[in-house]
Amino acid sequence: MTIFDEATAVTRRADGRYDALPDARFAIVAPGGTTPSAINGGALLATVMRAVLAESPQPHPVATSAHFLRVAAIAPAEVQVTWLKHGRTASTARGTLVQDGKVILDTTMTVGEVPGAGHVDGSVADGSLTWTGPPPGFPAIEDCLDLGKWRGTTGPDGTSGYAAQVEVLMDPATSGWRRDEPSGLPEMRGYFRLRDGQDPDPYVLALALDGLPPVVFGLGATGWAPTVELTWHMRAVPCPGPLAVAARARHVSGGWFDEEAEVWDAAGRLVAQSRQLARVGRGRLRAVANGPAQGVVTG
Amino acid sequence: MTIFDEATAVTRRADGRYDALPDARFAIVAPGGTTPSAINGGALLATVMRAVLAESPQPHPVATSAHFLRVAAIAPAEVQVTWLKHGRTASTARGTLVQDGKVILDTTMTVGEVPGAGHVDGSVADGSLTWTGPPPGFPAIEDCLDLGKWRGTTGPDGTSGYAAQVEVLMDPATSGWRRDEPSGLPEMRGYFRLRDGQDPDPYVLALALDGLPPVVFGLGATGWAPTVELTWHMRAVPCPGPLAVAARARHVSGGWFDEEAEVWDAAGRLVAQSRQLARVGRGRLRAVANGPAQGVVTG
Repeated sequence: MTIFDEATAVTRRADGRYDALPDARFAIVAPGGTTPSAINGGALLATVMRAVLAESPQPHPVATSAHFLRVAAIAPAEVQVTWLKHGRTASTARGTLVQDGKVILDTTMTVGEVPGAGHVDGSVADGSLTWTGPPPGFPAIEDCLDLGKWRGTTGPDGTSGYAAQVEVLMDPATSGWRRDEPSGLPEMRGYFRLRDGQDPDPYVLALALDGLPPVVFGLGATGWAPTVELTWHMRAVPCPGPLAVAARARHVSGGWFDEEAEVWDAAGRLVAQSRQLARVGRGRLRAVANGPAQGVVTG
Repeated sequence: MTIFDEATAVTRRADGRYDALPDARFAIVAPGGTTPSAINGGALLATVMRAVLAESPQPHPVATSAHFLRVAAIAPAEVQVTWLKHGRTASTARGTLVQDGKVILDTTMTVGEVPGAGHVDGSVADGSLTWTGPPPGFPAIEDCLDLGKWRGTTGPDGTSGYAAQVEVLMDPATSGWRRDEPSGLPEMRGYFRLRDGQDPDPYVLALALDGLPPVVFGLGATGWAPTVELTWHMRAVPCPGPLAVAARARHVSGGWFDEEAEVWDAAGRLVAQSRQLARVGRGRLRAVANGPAQGVVTG
């Protein structure tokens, strides 16, 4: 069992009731360690998905909507699963992560079946329509910069959470914010994999979709940018190997920003898509190095 | 009261319980009238939103996730509202449309506040970050083609539903499918307004986001393409006037396609975004006129 599998495991207690334990190994350790640790949202989402899929008549989480209501404590939690429909093509359930009687994360999942990892688009004999848009421009993985166990992610007692579990290799073009030179564009691109070598599966996809730094770092924002709502679609079963992730925003105002991400597998197939709405972090605003290349920035 | 307001009205019966009546004036009348009428998904969504917002401590539907489970009958329905969190910046509720004890449409809504119609990006005195990506290329409204009360939308008894309520003016570049010459790209662009002159509000935005023909018509697909899941974000209060809507897909396979839409108001502001996952219609597949301009099509 991998570290991620352990950290997001659920244990069935009764029909539609599962025990879970948000795991410090996927905590977001705040800079300086003064803020209470939050758990990475993708790890929480994977925990809820495991409970729903344990009961699912269809194999894949085709459409998962998640609203993040409260910060999870590193303490026992319950996942509650309620089925709203069992269908031939798709079924739908609510999956809710609860601590101390309060909803931490509320999800609705529609499950179904997507093309398998061996599937080559256009090769299917069923005559069904297949089309994929042009991929984002990913640099070669060897030209990317290892984000490392980034600044401020080690707590005062030496523990480091989420950042120690994942390897994020960033496109240099979207990494200027690390040198206090944000690019002026709300974009992040890079490669994502678990450091212990676990191959991608639907749960790893949920983690990877929100695995890069917030896109607003490219506009000079800093600080934790909490996800309010995230919906993702699984489009194909990923093959083994690193995942390429591209994220961008379309609009930032009133303290809200959208971040839409695509995940492509090592065979070059679009395997997952997401869009989230998040809050801009409350940290200081960095000056943008080169001015906006597109769009309009005002700070 | 406008026709759309009437058709999506709810009446409070008890705490968290509202009566609603899916309205034939927003039915999707199937070609030839042989299939039972479905109600436009945006009208159903607006109905649920009205019940949630009637109880909401914040004014705007910032993030709404909707899973469409069953076809609504033109018969009495109930909307059930359950609050999961009341917060200072945002609050979250479930809103569910139920008929005969079965869930038709299940939504989760996070409400908050977005910039008002009078707000000019960059003019705010609070120093907050504001950025907008480049708009899609919309042609001038006078160069667009009126989709009219389109083919097959009048029932055998002469009634016509949704298509008679809305005016859709299509970008000629995304209208070739009407002449059996689909463009080869899964894109739709156009202008959207209610024929009775109602100005846009959050409920009209929910209707407009899914108001254009399915993007897969551009790849030669035909027939009703049912929405499985749709999530939308309200980003600003729209000003009066027609809405410009641009939609595209990124991936079509296994019978599933995504459709992401943006709505811009008459003042040129991005006011709403959505992404849906839908099923490809079961109609015949048209030949694509010019071959794919981007991406890969196989039929």
